[in-house]
Amino acid sequence: MKRIKIFAPATVANLSCGFDVLGCCLDTVGDEMIISLSSEPGVRITKIEGADLPLETKKNVAGVAVEALLKDYEGAIGIEIEIYKKIKAGSGIGSSAASSAGAVWAVNHLLDHPFSAHKLVEFAMEGEKLASGNAHADNVAPALLGGFTLVRSYDPLDVIKLHTPKDLVMTVIHPQIEVKTSDARSVIKQNVTLKQAIHQWGNVGGLVTGLFTEDYELIGRSLEDVIIEPMRSILIPEFKNVKKVAIAKGALGCGISGSGPSIFALSKGMDTAKKVAEAIKEVYTKTGLDFDIHISKINNDGIKIIN
Amino acid sequence: MKRIKIFAPATVANLSCGFDVLGCCLDTVGDEMIISLSSEPGVRITKIEGADLPLETKKNVAGVAVEALLKDYEGAIGIEIEIYKKIKAGSGIGSSAASSAGAVWAVNHLLDHPFSAHKLVEFAMEGEKLASGNAHADNVAPALLGGFTLVRSYDPLDVIKLHTPKDLVMTVIHPQIEVKTSDARSVIKQNVTLKQAIHQWGNVGGLVTGLFTEDYELIGRSLEDVIIEPMRSILIPEFKNVKKVAIAKGALGCGISGSGPSIFALSKGMDTAKKVAEAIKEVYTKTGLDFDIHISKINNDGIKIIN
Repeated sequence: MKRIKIFAPATVANLSCGFDVLGCCLDTVGDEMIISLSSEPGVRITKIEGADLPLETKKNVAGVAVEALLKDYEGAIGIEIEIYKKIKAGSGIGSSAASSAGAVWAVNHLLDHPFSAHKLVEFAMEGEKLASGNAHADNVAPALLGGFTLVRSYDPLDVIKLHTPKDLVMTVIHPQIEVKTSDARSVIKQNVTLKQAIHQWGNVGGLVTGLFTEDYELIGRSLEDVIIEPMRSILIPEFKNVKKVAIAKGALGCGISGSGPSIFALSKGMDTAKKVAEAIKEVYTKTGLDFDIHISKINNDGIKIIN
Repeated sequence: MKRIKIFAPATVANLSCGFDVLGCCLDTVGDEMIISLSSEPGVRITKIEGADLPLETKKNVAGVAVEALLKDYEGAIGIEIEIYKKIKAGSGIGSSAASSAGAVWAVNHLLDHPFSAHKLVEFAMEGEKLASGNAHADNVAPALLGGFTLVRSYDPLDVIKLHTPKDLVMTVIHPQIEVKTSDARSVIKQNVTLKQAIHQWGNVGGLVTGLFTEDYELIGRSLEDVIIEPMRSILIPEFKNVKKVAIAKGALGCGISGSGPSIFALSKGMDTAKKVAEAIKEVYTKTGLDFDIHISKINNDGIKIIN
């Protein structure tokens, strides 16, 4: 029975200015999955460790994503999926995306790559739809393509890989409070002023430029969110203080990771990212809340096979 | 008396998705100006040919822009300005921007460059403020910096030069109807849906990426405006047909230049740009309206000294 073990990375979506369109892939934070071809047709989740998630295929994000893939694949095959969760559910660093992207990537690999990365994004989005009611691509795209990605358009889907300056390092704090993606979405107003929108797309242009030109200062100046962050940050304890100390310690920028509650800070260089982590840790230790802190380079490859 | 003669180029602002932030500089369409240092302090517009514009310094965009510059300059000097307009006022290809940007660029040159290009953008914006009531930078920035430019932020002002793929050619039609910038602004709603805004900033990210990676197809896909164009295009006769034939003839994209009424079509290569011009001409000839058509490469240098 053909099988592979993969690393399915965590991802940081939105990146302040790029709500629903920008994301990037982490290197040292992620799940492991074992995906096997089976002679018995259908998709089966055979094992989940590290999280209390449904084994039933249609209720599992990896299950529905692989089912979407098989619907486009000629030939009746079977898939068995084992999931070893390390990314906590509801953390805002792409836990569901890692599972759905990882599963379709692995199946595509086992089948000798019948589908493009772009097509895999579409399949994985079915998992996101199950997880949050919204088929967004800003986590599954960076998980599948690696590095920084842009969802230029959702209809038709148009996903583009950007350039990754090599010195960028993410510090992420995950406060262990529950903020459901659906709740985080409900605090967002569906209308914005044109002025805010202009401000935001100026920053999207600036961030993309900064990535391509490796202009770290410009990346920092562009990591600004005048629309979503003011609404969502009220759901995250100590957000303002975390941002303040991160910037004070030299982070280029700091914002909400995806729909939160995780907070990311992007720095130039590992030393700065570590100092930022220390300062954030100090802020959060005082709250008495449980939290995890991750420090990770940007993973330019995305999902990969491991032993 | 130290004097220079300059070419002050026309510019195309907004570029569909980048309302108020993106613009690019034309190569073969522009005004000429002669700027002289004088021993008599103050700013004087001594001659205007080709347009019925005020000679009074405080009512002339070049005059107020140079006055803004001199306010920041130590030492009492005099400036005399001759303007030979070739860009028609109210055309939507940066007529006022050419005058104000040209004047401050030339004065800075005559004074041995005391000011940065960034600072010159600020001074030239005073001219824009006089012309339209709004100190926008999306025409003066490309006139001063050349190529494609992004206004990442207005407060504080942050203007960035992007990359220009060498095969891009603009076709611009200027229907000779009057659409005042202030009128073109008044049809715009001040609120947009978050969904529209996301669509737009996805395209800004796509266009900037396409410019840096010289991906002409991506540039074309990103030249889309779901917010301003639907509102403003009703002011421009035959807009839909012009866009239709331009795309049919191979243009990458087509939209309103600045606040209109000019329409731009961006193509890969001079041959396509010429075919697009022919097709647009055919559409407009039937209207009985007067019009000009320009075909121009992108001018990567901006304002320049001529003999």
